[in-house]
Amino acid sequence: MKFQAPIYATPLTCGLIEGKLKRNSPGTKADLNRVNAGDKIQLGAFSIEFFHVCHSIPDSVGLGIETPGGLIVHTSDYKLDHTPVDNWPTDYAKLADFANRGVLALLSDSTNSTQPGWTKSERVIDAALDKVMQEAEGRVLVATFASLISRMQQVADAAQRHGRKIAFTGRSMVDNFKIASELGYVNIPDRLVVSMEKSLSMPDNQVVLMVTGSQGEPRSILGRLANGTNRKFDVREGDTIVLSSHPIPGNEESVYRTINNLFRRGANVIYESIAPVHVSGHASEEEIKLLLNLVQPKYVIPMHGELRMLKQAAKLAEQVGIAKDHIEVVENGQVIEFVNGEMRLGKRLPGGYIFVDGSGVGDVDQDIVRERDTLGRDGVLMVRVDVDERNGQLKGEPVITTRGFMLEDEFDSIHKGLKNRLKATVKKSNGNGSLEKEILGTVKSYIFSETKRNPYIFVATNRK
Amino acid sequence: MKFQAPIYATPLTCGLIEGKLKRNSPGTKADLNRVNAGDKIQLGAFSIEFFHVCHSIPDSVGLGIETPGGLIVHTSDYKLDHTPVDNWPTDYAKLADFANRGVLALLSDSTNSTQPGWTKSERVIDAALDKVMQEAEGRVLVATFASLISRMQQVADAAQRHGRKIAFTGRSMVDNFKIASELGYVNIPDRLVVSMEKSLSMPDNQVVLMVTGSQGEPRSILGRLANGTNRKFDVREGDTIVLSSHPIPGNEESVYRTINNLFRRGANVIYESIAPVHVSGHASEEEIKLLLNLVQPKYVIPMHGELRMLKQAAKLAEQVGIAKDHIEVVENGQVIEFVNGEMRLGKRLPGGYIFVDGSGVGDVDQDIVRERDTLGRDGVLMVRVDVDERNGQLKGEPVITTRGFMLEDEFDSIHKGLKNRLKATVKKSNGNGSLEKEILGTVKSYIFSETKRNPYIFVATNRK
Repeated sequence: MKFQAPIYATPLTCGLIEGKLKRNSPGTKADLNRVNAGDKIQLGAFSIEFFHVCHSIPDSVGLGIETPGGLIVHTSDYKLDHTPVDNWPTDYAKLADFANRGVLALLSDSTNSTQPGWTKSERVIDAALDKVMQEAEGRVLVATFASLISRMQQVADAAQRHGRKIAFTGRSMVDNFKIASELGYVNIPDRLVVSMEKSLSMPDNQVVLMVTGSQGEPRSILGRLANGTNRKFDVREGDTIVLSSHPIPGNEESVYRTINNLFRRGANVIYESIAPVHVSGHASEEEIKLLLNLVQPKYVIPMHGELRMLKQAAKLAEQVGIAKDHIEVVENGQVIEFVNGEMRLGKRLPGGYIFVDGSGVGDVDQDIVRERDTLGRDGVLMVRVDVDERNGQLKGEPVITTRGFMLEDEFDSIHKGLKNRLKATVKKSNGNGSLEKEILGTVKSYIFSETKRNPYIFVATNRK
Repeated sequence: MKFQAPIYATPLTCGLIEGKLKRNSPGTKADLNRVNAGDKIQLGAFSIEFFHVCHSIPDSVGLGIETPGGLIVHTSDYKLDHTPVDNWPTDYAKLADFANRGVLALLSDSTNSTQPGWTKSERVIDAALDKVMQEAEGRVLVATFASLISRMQQVADAAQRHGRKIAFTGRSMVDNFKIASELGYVNIPDRLVVSMEKSLSMPDNQVVLMVTGSQGEPRSILGRLANGTNRKFDVREGDTIVLSSHPIPGNEESVYRTINNLFRRGANVIYESIAPVHVSGHASEEEIKLLLNLVQPKYVIPMHGELRMLKQAAKLAEQVGIAKDHIEVVENGQVIEFVNGEMRLGKRLPGGYIFVDGSGVGDVDQDIVRERDTLGRDGVLMVRVDVDERNGQLKGEPVITTRGFMLEDEFDSIHKGLKNRLKATVKKSNGNGSLEKEILGTVKSYIFSETKRNPYIFVATNRK
């Protein structure tokens, strides 16, 4: 681990972190400290109070941070759900208490700032699940985020109401169910749960399977079912598959491709656009405005969301009467300072993403990703030229290999032209030292003029 | 051109086709035939009647095809807009007339089958544009599809109402405006239109610019403005930029990145999620059901849309009482036959996409795209090994080059390990013929075990 910083989290979050560490870095010991909503801890000059907020995972907390400069409230991810699955609404009293004490600045979740109205309660999903299980003649498969613990409870409850057993499959789904069960965050009777293997031999209309892959990830259970590469079982004619999720921006294409492939394999697929089988865990416009009025901060710093969402959250703050110069939209790395109760921008610290790729963490950066982008757009072209050591002239034919560039048949005429240019280039160069560079130039300009493409070009020359 | 088939189209469509041909394949002569809504033509055994439908482009038509087997109705893209911008609603009378004559099969646009309710009229955009121009203190830039001719009219009308001049920029936008103007499909007084160059020297609050790039295309005007690479002008502080469009599935990420970058450059950006500046040109659920009830077909074949949309359109047809076995969801290439008034599936013909890449048409196929996918995911690694001709042993050090694989620093330890494996492989092989294959195997398995990645690997061996 790069930093051995202490981590404070509620019990479920601690359980999930431990599970992830065990899976991804066995043997790593983190300095994990359990806290609960209502707890207060002292960290240096800061006194931090945890308060309950509703989100798509139980046991979420926001932070009230008493600093020498004033009180800072950080909402964390939240929604104002009056009928959450665990019957534990956001702690409005605490928000009002903060307001009474005077809030210097509010950092507030902006993910759904572009959504008008009020985010629907998790409860609406119950009716949609009832309808699905009522109408399904065969198995029901439900895919969702493995961390969406309350959704597990809702699906299990619906399964019970419709005389079905529930099985969990996909590593993170199984792990998280176990952790949430042990810690008491889901309450599913043992007799309701069967193993995935057991479920495969039961009558189809008595089975609900909770699976991973709601974002169309190719290695998840749902991704493999869509591609026909799942080992233990396949999609059956008559299966009803529910995606209880919303595509994360950028995943739309793979999610919809997965849905199309599941249809192609004979399943009936139910997803957010055709039935209310998912609701967001983030506050919409009216909730954000209510929160602002409850907390009555002096300054507002929208957080969590793309820049366009932060900008919209800033507009909402203006609408409820926060002065424009008391709202600051900043991106990651921007320091904000409070001096004598006034907010001002500090310097910009380096910050950004750390890429995780294969088994590597941080061994890939923006430049590497840009190279992959070029490779993925135009492919690669390799040229190998043998040159006679004695007279600097071509020995044999140039060898040209491509990947991801163009079809062989179509490449034929270009191939010939390219060989001729190569021969001329070698002839002209007369064995001087910059031959490789000259060949690279020749290939690049010829390929671009013929195809209007810029593949990665590699040149290897050998003197024999 | 691959096929010299005759093309029948309404005048605006003919104009747009001619424009595209002139731009992309100068000198090509197409067999273009002008028709109008209400016209009937005879093609072999088929008598084809064109009828007006509303869509996001004026002059759209559907087809009533009288065949020896019965009447087939093809809706084309449509919506049932009662207040279209050109005041010309869909031809309900003709649809009723088809129903009276008896419709064997209906092929119906399914793009918005997953959208509940009724698609909003194009008219609602007027109010949103008024609000934008009212509030904008500087220039207003509107990006939309260059083919969305009625949107040009609406933006020009709004500009006039708010004392602004309008300029067009981006090649397809300028071309299409010219074509639509000449043919009378837009009615914008000359004095309202200025050149883009002229607009740059006018007071900001008197300018509306219509630009290309509503899908975040990097080479469009909007894409270049977002990246700061537009030649003639930049985003100015105080600009209001409107994306009057909906991201085409798969484009969400680039559209939102473009929006975020425009915000970053100081513009205020208005887009579909935060104001009604766009409406779809396709029928939603209730319109699709109304169409089915108007046309009363014996058979239904949903078309135009992803498989999930076709499936949902089939459900809607069931809901209005079409028997399940009278609805057929098929994908491109599937022949449908009608024999004695009964529908049955014929064979599946080869069909699919033709890729256009660089200056090439059809010189890239699925396999090439798959290779690019691999390259773009894991990069490429090249190994060059020189072998002594006399004793089959390594001559000098192996040369290892990568692109898009991993950072040089991080690669260091792997690099060393790989060199050692290569040396051992060459030593063991003792100069036999399959050395290149053996080296490939060594590299592949070592790289995967160390990094869990599968880059494209190239091996070149030289005997010296």
